[in-house]
Amino acid sequence: MFSSTTYQRRREILKKEVSHGGILLLGHIESPINFEHNTYPFRQDSSFLYYVGIQVPRLAVLFDVDENRDILFGDEHDLDDVIWMGRQETLQDKCLKAGLQEVRPFNQLGAYIQNMLRGNRKVHYLPPYQSYSEILLQEVLGIPRAAISPSATLIRAVVKQRSVKEDQEIEQIEKAVQVSVDMHRLAMQIAKPGMKEFEIVNAIQKLAADQSCSLAYPPIVTVHGEVLHNHYRQHTLQSGDMVLNDSGAETAMGYAADLTRTFPVDRTFTVQQREVYQVVLKAFADARCMLQPGAQFKEVHLQAARSLVTGLIELGLMHGDPEEAVQNHAHTLFFQCGLGHMMGLDVHDMEDLGEQYVGYTEDEPKDTETFGLKSLRLGKALQSGYVITVEPGIYIIPELIDRWQAEKKHSAFINYATLAQYRNFGGIRIEDNFLITPRGNRVLGPELMITVDEIEAYRSSFC
Amino acid sequence: MFSSTTYQRRREILKKEVSHGGILLLGHIESPINFEHNTYPFRQDSSFLYYVGIQVPRLAVLFDVDENRDILFGDEHDLDDVIWMGRQETLQDKCLKAGLQEVRPFNQLGAYIQNMLRGNRKVHYLPPYQSYSEILLQEVLGIPRAAISPSATLIRAVVKQRSVKEDQEIEQIEKAVQVSVDMHRLAMQIAKPGMKEFEIVNAIQKLAADQSCSLAYPPIVTVHGEVLHNHYRQHTLQSGDMVLNDSGAETAMGYAADLTRTFPVDRTFTVQQREVYQVVLKAFADARCMLQPGAQFKEVHLQAARSLVTGLIELGLMHGDPEEAVQNHAHTLFFQCGLGHMMGLDVHDMEDLGEQYVGYTEDEPKDTETFGLKSLRLGKALQSGYVITVEPGIYIIPELIDRWQAEKKHSAFINYATLAQYRNFGGIRIEDNFLITPRGNRVLGPELMITVDEIEAYRSSFC
Repeated sequence: MFSSTTYQRRREILKKEVSHGGILLLGHIESPINFEHNTYPFRQDSSFLYYVGIQVPRLAVLFDVDENRDILFGDEHDLDDVIWMGRQETLQDKCLKAGLQEVRPFNQLGAYIQNMLRGNRKVHYLPPYQSYSEILLQEVLGIPRAAISPSATLIRAVVKQRSVKEDQEIEQIEKAVQVSVDMHRLAMQIAKPGMKEFEIVNAIQKLAADQSCSLAYPPIVTVHGEVLHNHYRQHTLQSGDMVLNDSGAETAMGYAADLTRTFPVDRTFTVQQREVYQVVLKAFADARCMLQPGAQFKEVHLQAARSLVTGLIELGLMHGDPEEAVQNHAHTLFFQCGLGHMMGLDVHDMEDLGEQYVGYTEDEPKDTETFGLKSLRLGKALQSGYVITVEPGIYIIPELIDRWQAEKKHSAFINYATLAQYRNFGGIRIEDNFLITPRGNRVLGPELMITVDEIEAYRSSFC
Repeated sequence: MFSSTTYQRRREILKKEVSHGGILLLGHIESPINFEHNTYPFRQDSSFLYYVGIQVPRLAVLFDVDENRDILFGDEHDLDDVIWMGRQETLQDKCLKAGLQEVRPFNQLGAYIQNMLRGNRKVHYLPPYQSYSEILLQEVLGIPRAAISPSATLIRAVVKQRSVKEDQEIEQIEKAVQVSVDMHRLAMQIAKPGMKEFEIVNAIQKLAADQSCSLAYPPIVTVHGEVLHNHYRQHTLQSGDMVLNDSGAETAMGYAADLTRTFPVDRTFTVQQREVYQVVLKAFADARCMLQPGAQFKEVHLQAARSLVTGLIELGLMHGDPEEAVQNHAHTLFFQCGLGHMMGLDVHDMEDLGEQYVGYTEDEPKDTETFGLKSLRLGKALQSGYVITVEPGIYIIPELIDRWQAEKKHSAFINYATLAQYRNFGGIRIEDNFLITPRGNRVLGPELMITVDEIEAYRSSFC
């Protein structure tokens, strides 16, 4: 945990911003796997973590703005619990560390809220994303499921606060990146023909766990990098393949990292692989140059897209004017997704609060229709203190090519004949994590080999 | 998956047993970690797995007993899914492998059920243990949460069927045991002073994952074996400690194993450790001898308890008549929990269906009051084809001793003065998995060192 004053200060700012009523944050339970008492590893809700910091299941907290009281609802262990789970720090002690003076039994939460509602006082809450929280909200608010109505005021206040990272949060994120860099180095050390994708996943998961980290998300480690969310992991690495490794650690305090590298199963890339890699790396570098306070991330995304198109034209895969190609979204045949997203206590930071609040503004809302842009999670202007990912890629998806080609879609920009030679190419993504600084940006964590030469030299020392 | 005829046969038997109405089984979703699309590894519901075998999220199945139709409700992937997740086997194809002819969109489930209800036909369903399933039941049945009423008829039919394992299921369980034996051997190889408990967990988890297995439950690997559900894992192994390792693998098809061994951090046990270990091992052997069709497992449990008391009397920790001590529950100072449980697709098999159905009968219901017996999950007569665990132990819990001693509880049986010398002893448990055979029992999987000599010899070859 951070210091108690950290949590107190965060709560003071939040209450001031919300200004009236009560703020209800629900902690998580332990999610059942196949019966109630066989559970997945506990992970506290991120907003609860941010304002309270206590990693214990079955808690809720209410910040009574009007009365300036912060009350935690939860139950102490009894002697039976001690027999089964050992002597543990009391909830009261944990609350003191979080700067919370008032603890009440969990079953008093409903009465407190009902009392507020009877007094015509507003109870603000965030969108529930676990069924448990939906049920609990119905119970304590005394409303049917359809009436659950998260508070835009609260969402905006939380997003505003969590978006700008404190120094101690950046330290945590850098720790996560550091472990992730080790994970990526390990993957580049052990990968060899004949290995299964899941063996690499198992090895990097163990490395993270030995550093007291979990994985921030299910890793994508695959020789089919063109499948964007590939969790299959059963393919066998073969000579000539590339491995796309998109994986990141999460620290014990809950902070995430999110890195991607693509490397050859052999010591070196093929000529074709190297050429496409250079195109992605150039787009990555071009995007990075633009990262500074005030830069619209949507513009950074589009600049990366133009950069990719320029490179693809040089390779003969596209033709025409890069600017025009991107305006027509022709690049989305190769780059179907977004350039990056916010990162912090969640790998897609605050995704549960809604992209329209986290990544966009009311004046410039998200484009939810256009293929490509609808997958861009972050479009708004960057601020100093934001932590974001930059992750351009080129993905050769045969099914998508077949559909476009049948429709002759964007044939003014795409050379389908040349593209046929790349049909089994796969996919390449390069991703690092950046802090927006007052004057520009800083890559987080230690350096991880990124150029063709660096990667080939590293691979060659282990193959 | 097993063969389609396996699932068809299982469904036929179930429908015959339930005899009327419809049987609704809900599959699982992917449970969110910290936002909707960041999810834990998917695990299908075990009864759904048993009757349908399809490991895909967001499915439901309805066996219409009256019309003898089995309908799966679920949605096929579209092209967008292919772009993000790759080309996958269709749901239709998976259904054919499960012997299911009829597939409908998921959103038609509610209408089908409402139609049944309008026809005054009964819809049987199992107790929901995930909040998602609770919400879905409310929706499709059109009832409030308080009106959810699982079908005892269905529960009994499922328990009857799942309790007696088919040969192909036993093969799966033996595979799980085999991987678990390797996990336990590895733990005994690598444990050494200075190591953290979680490092052993990480190593055995990787071993299981490399064999395409998950862990059937969160492992208990601790130098504080007296803490019965110890998931802390931060202790450092020290010379003189014992490690209690309670861990088991789950096969890709969902079958569990559940083994426990307790071994010294040094090459050898101390004299005190060895003496207590022998007492637990004798109880284990005595219990095993009784395992055969018709044996009441509650009697096996009590026999193990008497065996423990006999040994504890020899060590000077108890006195009096073992039979009388057990009748008075004096042994529960040392053995606070149950001797074992059913095992199969769940490590505590069918725990979600209710212990009163799985482990007991209406004529001989569970003792839910008495300390010790209230933790015994299985009490009824064994049948050929049952797979169970046997796991006696001795746990020295200082908090419990202090409470009993202050109350002078059972001082007719317990030598509190001698017990003081064992205050920091810790805990020992020994656990194997057994199949009840027509003439007795068979331990499942390959042999795992269990005697003091075997364990010390194995440890010595690595320390």
